[in-house]
Amino acid sequence: MDNFTFYSPTYFVFGKDEEKRAGSLVKRFGGSRVLIHYGGGSVVRSGLLDRVKKSLDEAGLYYTELGGVKPNPRSGLVYEGIDLCRKEKIDFVLAVGGGSTIDSSKAIAAGTVYDGDFWDFYSGKLVEKALPIGTILTIAAAGSEGSPDSVITNENGMFKRGATGEAYRPAFSILNPELTCTLPPYQTACGITDIMAHLMERYLTNTKDVVTTDRMIEALMLAMIEEGPKAVQNPQDYEARANIMWAGMMAHNNSCGVGRSQDWNSHNIEHELSALYDCAHGAGLAVTFPAYLGYVYKHDVDRVAQLAVRVWGCKDDPDNREAVALEGIEKLRAFSKSIGMPVTLGELGGKEEDIPKLADVCCNGDGRDGFLYGFDRLSEEDVANIYRQMI
Amino acid sequence: MDNFTFYSPTYFVFGKDEEKRAGSLVKRFGGSRVLIHYGGGSVVRSGLLDRVKKSLDEAGLYYTELGGVKPNPRSGLVYEGIDLCRKEKIDFVLAVGGGSTIDSSKAIAAGTVYDGDFWDFYSGKLVEKALPIGTILTIAAAGSEGSPDSVITNENGMFKRGATGEAYRPAFSILNPELTCTLPPYQTACGITDIMAHLMERYLTNTKDVVTTDRMIEALMLAMIEEGPKAVQNPQDYEARANIMWAGMMAHNNSCGVGRSQDWNSHNIEHELSALYDCAHGAGLAVTFPAYLGYVYKHDVDRVAQLAVRVWGCKDDPDNREAVALEGIEKLRAFSKSIGMPVTLGELGGKEEDIPKLADVCCNGDGRDGFLYGFDRLSEEDVANIYRQMI
Repeated sequence: MDNFTFYSPTYFVFGKDEEKRAGSLVKRFGGSRVLIHYGGGSVVRSGLLDRVKKSLDEAGLYYTELGGVKPNPRSGLVYEGIDLCRKEKIDFVLAVGGGSTIDSSKAIAAGTVYDGDFWDFYSGKLVEKALPIGTILTIAAAGSEGSPDSVITNENGMFKRGATGEAYRPAFSILNPELTCTLPPYQTACGITDIMAHLMERYLTNTKDVVTTDRMIEALMLAMIEEGPKAVQNPQDYEARANIMWAGMMAHNNSCGVGRSQDWNSHNIEHELSALYDCAHGAGLAVTFPAYLGYVYKHDVDRVAQLAVRVWGCKDDPDNREAVALEGIEKLRAFSKSIGMPVTLGELGGKEEDIPKLADVCCNGDGRDGFLYGFDRLSEEDVANIYRQMI
Repeated sequence: MDNFTFYSPTYFVFGKDEEKRAGSLVKRFGGSRVLIHYGGGSVVRSGLLDRVKKSLDEAGLYYTELGGVKPNPRSGLVYEGIDLCRKEKIDFVLAVGGGSTIDSSKAIAAGTVYDGDFWDFYSGKLVEKALPIGTILTIAAAGSEGSPDSVITNENGMFKRGATGEAYRPAFSILNPELTCTLPPYQTACGITDIMAHLMERYLTNTKDVVTTDRMIEALMLAMIEEGPKAVQNPQDYEARANIMWAGMMAHNNSCGVGRSQDWNSHNIEHELSALYDCAHGAGLAVTFPAYLGYVYKHDVDRVAQLAVRVWGCKDDPDNREAVALEGIEKLRAFSKSIGMPVTLGELGGKEEDIPKLADVCCNGDGRDGFLYGFDRLSEEDVANIYRQMI
C-alpha cells in the first residue's frame, strides 16, 4: 500500500423526507445567501424545488436560483452561475439534482471566489478554495455528493475535463432514496453502470498487497449486482434504491481507493463519447468498459481473473486465468445488457469514421501528451483500437 | 434501511514516517498548547515519543505530557489529565498509543471543558464539546482513531462504560503501519479479534434489506481473515499491517454500520471480563463471541448462516441453516485459536463462581435495568448462561 491522506468531512443525512432539513443544514454550515442550482423538469414537476425553497424560507435564508443544467454539464452555464453569485453576493451553493448539477455547482462555487478563468481548475490547477456546497441528490450515480471531483464539458470544442480538490467536498449531502424512485429504468441503469465503473477504475491498480480495498470494492460491486436489477425492474423499490444510494457514495468517496494506483482510462475514453454524441455518461461507460477490459486484461490477467471469480462468480482456473478473465468480461457485458444498457458504439449513435477523431481528442486534447496513463499506458493507436472493439 | 446521519471529518494521514507531520497537523487544527498522552514502555523505548516531541518543537508548539495509560484505561488518570490540562491551559490533546490511550485522551478532552464530573458522559450524557484531539496510532484494534466513542473503566467498582458524541471524532489521526510492526503476536491477535468483533456487532442486526453494509462488513472480515494470520506469524509484514490498520479504522468509523440496528451485547458481556480480570479486551472478545453466538443464533439463524457461508466459506444448506450457522461459529472459534487467542473463561483467569456477579454487574450496573438490548433481549439469566458457555 502507498502512503495517502483521506479526508471526507461531508455531513451525510440519509433517508426519507430529509430534504426538509436543507435550510437548517445550510445555516449550520455558514450559509446566508444561497444559490439553488438545478437542472429542470423533474425537480420542478415533482415539487422538490418548492419543498427546498420552503425549507430555506423557514430558516430565514435569502436565495436565488439557476436552473438549466444539462447532462454532461456545460461551461457556459458555469460562467452564468459565477456572474449571478457575484452579483447576488451568494455565500452558499445548494445543488438539487444529480451528478451533473453537483459538478456544475462545484465549478460555480470555485469560480466565484477565483480571480481567473474557472477553466484553469479543469486544466490541472488544484481547487483550494470554493464557496461551501450542499447537495440534495436525486440520482445515485456520479458519487459527486461525497467526492472532491467535478467534470465539466467545455463548449469550446465539446471536450470533458475533470477538476479536483478538498474544497470540492460538499459541506453536507442529503441522500433521500425516495427522490430516486421516480427515475425511469434507463437512467437508473446508467447510474448503476457509473457506480460500477467507479469501482472498477479503482480495482485496476498496479499496487500490490491491497487486500482490504480490493475486498471493499468487490463488496460494493456485489451489492450493485444484487440491488441494481431490482431498482431497474421495480423503480419504487425503496430498499434497493437505498442500498444503491449508499453504495454510490461509498464507491466514489475514495475510502475503497486509498493507498493504491487507480486507472481512469475508461472514464477518459468514455468522456469523448458523451462529449461528442451527448449520450448519457453511464451508457457510454457500459459500452466502454467491456471493450477496454478486453483490450488491457493481459496487463494483469490475475487481477482481472480475480474480479471475475469474486464478483462475477466465475470458477477459478489457475492454469488458464485468461479464460477466467474473459468469462468475467462477458458477464459484465451480459449484466449491462440485462439492465437495458447499450454495449456497442452504434447504440450510442457513434460511427466508425469518428474513431480517429475520438482517439485524437482523447490522447492529445487540452494538455495531454499523446498517451493515457493508468492501469496500462495507452497510445493513440491503442485508444483507437479500443474504440474499434465497441463496434 | 433506517434513516441516519454519518459524519466522519477526521483527517487521516496514512503511511510510513507520517508521525513526523504531527506538529504541523496540530497547528492546522488550531492547537498551540498540547497535552501528549500515552501509555508507557514501548512508546518511550521505541523513540516514538521523542520523534513526536521533535515534530512539535519544530512547529513551535508548547507541550506537556502525561504517561501511564493502562489497557482498560482508568478513570483516575482521566481526572489527573483534566487537572493538568486546566492548569496548563491545554488546547489540544495528542494521543500517542492504542485504543486505551485514545479513549483516555477523549475523556480528558471532554472533561477539561465540562463543569461537572466527566463520568456523566459515561453514564449516558452525549459528548457535545471537547478539546480537539489528534492521534498517532500504535495498534490496530479499537478503531477509536476514527470513531466517536470512548470506553473507560471506573475504578470505583471496576466496571467499564462507553461514551459517544461527534466531538469525540479526532481532528486528525496518523496511521503509520510501521509503528505496529513491533507488536508481539498476542497483542496483534487481540487487535484482530477486536476489529472482527466490531464488524460482527454491526452484522447482527434486526434491520432488513441492508445488502450494501452487509457486503462491506463481510469484505472487511475477509480481509482480516487473510491478513491477520500473516501479521501474527510475521510481525514485520508491513503490507499485512497496513491492510489491517485501514480495515480497523473502516470497521469502526461506522460507514459499514449505518442505517441498521447494531448489537453490542458481546462487548457489554466482555467488558465485565476485562474489568474484573484485567485481561486484554481482544482476548475477552475471543472468548465471548463464539459463546454468545452459540446462545443467540436462533434469533436469526439465516443471518448467522449467511455470515458462515460468505465469510467462513461454509457450504450453504437451505434445509438446515442451523447446521450452517453452527459450523460458522466453530470456524470463528478455530480462527481465534489459530492466532493464539483464548477461547475459555479459565484461560482469562476467570472462575465459574464469579458468573453470578459478572451477570449481575453486566445487567444491573450503572443505570441498566436488568437486561441487555441488542440483536436479542437478554435477561440476567441469559447473560449468566452465556458466561457458562465459556467454561
